[in-house]
Amino acid sequence: MQGVLEDALSVVFGVPFALTVAGRTDAGVHATGQVCHADITRDAWVAAMAGHVIRRVNGVLPPEVRVLDMRRVPDEFDARFSAMWRRYVYRVSDAEYGGLPLNRGDTVWHPRALGLRRLQSASKALIGEHDFAAFCRRREGATTIRTLRKLSWSRGTDGVFNATVEADAFCHQMVRSVIGTLLAVGDGRKTIDWVADVLASGDRQRAGGVAPAHGLTLVEVRYPPESRLAARAEQTRRRRDEPLG
Amino acid sequence: MQGVLEDALSVVFGVPFALTVAGRTDAGVHATGQVCHADITRDAWVAAMAGHVIRRVNGVLPPEVRVLDMRRVPDEFDARFSAMWRRYVYRVSDAEYGGLPLNRGDTVWHPRALGLRRLQSASKALIGEHDFAAFCRRREGATTIRTLRKLSWSRGTDGVFNATVEADAFCHQMVRSVIGTLLAVGDGRKTIDWVADVLASGDRQRAGGVAPAHGLTLVEVRYPPESRLAARAEQTRRRRDEPLG
Repeated sequence: MQGVLEDALSVVFGVPFALTVAGRTDAGVHATGQVCHADITRDAWVAAMAGHVIRRVNGVLPPEVRVLDMRRVPDEFDARFSAMWRRYVYRVSDAEYGGLPLNRGDTVWHPRALGLRRLQSASKALIGEHDFAAFCRRREGATTIRTLRKLSWSRGTDGVFNATVEADAFCHQMVRSVIGTLLAVGDGRKTIDWVADVLASGDRQRAGGVAPAHGLTLVEVRYPPESRLAARAEQTRRRRDEPLG
Repeated sequence: MQGVLEDALSVVFGVPFALTVAGRTDAGVHATGQVCHADITRDAWVAAMAGHVIRRVNGVLPPEVRVLDMRRVPDEFDARFSAMWRRYVYRVSDAEYGGLPLNRGDTVWHPRALGLRRLQSASKALIGEHDFAAFCRRREGATTIRTLRKLSWSRGTDGVFNATVEADAFCHQMVRSVIGTLLAVGDGRKTIDWVADVLASGDRQRAGGVAPAHGLTLVEVRYPPESRLAARAEQTRRRRDEPLG
């Protein structure tokens, strides 16, 4: 997505574009609330905004990518490091008929029956600040300590299970690894207590599988008020290496 | 869809299958609430239901088609002629950015700004029993009189306009022709009064264009209680030739 968008912006603005993305996502993961920033000259900005720049950028982009808004931000704004938290939604269906055709682009079909209460109970052990090493693809020197603000499950009228996951940041494949682990409890293959054991072990081999990418959507990235953008970015840079979703 | 489903059922049941479909839809139109019936022998039914027949049928079907339920019905049940009404939803977005990637399978992008109140006001003239000849592809000998039970518009939190349309039955391309006409009012190209003129004219040349198929979804077909299935089918057969969506 990032390269496609950089290309389109370069075409429309007539200058090279390098984007910083709030929530970098694996191939196949969706985003409805992605945020990026770029540094460009005032002249390039003024020239572009004179036209209908959003419409022109979208005219160049493939239909899989749409720019919803573009705006000037304070110099202190950093799409990645100023973010306070990111919210993802994961959609999974256990319908016996195997997933509805109109949902299949963003909903994963799970071949075993799931229990909403089991999913909810199993999630509790993960909320708060923990070392999520058991759920992260390990990277040299990067911390795997994250604060999970929210991890809740609901079930829509269409029977689809929705997991909402919020954290200050996510290490690589963390959401999908958490979901894969919780699904193993939700369908009865593992006990509810097993999740806390996996977390405490810090051992990636003990976690459940990584759930498929296409069930995951980045839906929101939240930033502090302008006065705290710079302080937040500085604090984040100090605390960790790479926030990956 | 019908042929694909007949083939899959024939494979699983081991006997030829001929389906009668409640709401026949044009290519590209979706259905989440389609209903079909077929006459098969008791032996074929018992043999099939001994296994997990829905799962087996879905295993043969392509991912675009899913059977949600199968059940025995009284002999008097006719998926097409026993139906009391069909409900369709049409989804259209006028977002300046051109339609969201995750919606584009079932939501049409309209290149002009739409007004919800204009769409609602323009719809009123069509509710009730009318000759919808101006909105129907004419077919030899078939009546174009239909009763429109409901035609309402709402706007979702995502900004997408949803039209809900219910009628005893629809003649060919009627929903899409009605929507195409209402969109011309909704975006200000035509006046609200123009809709009543089009309806009264009975002239297909005067209506707006036929809206794209992929915005339309058949969501529900409603049947009377068992005791009235036969009477309803008989009444419908007398009144009209072909109910097409």
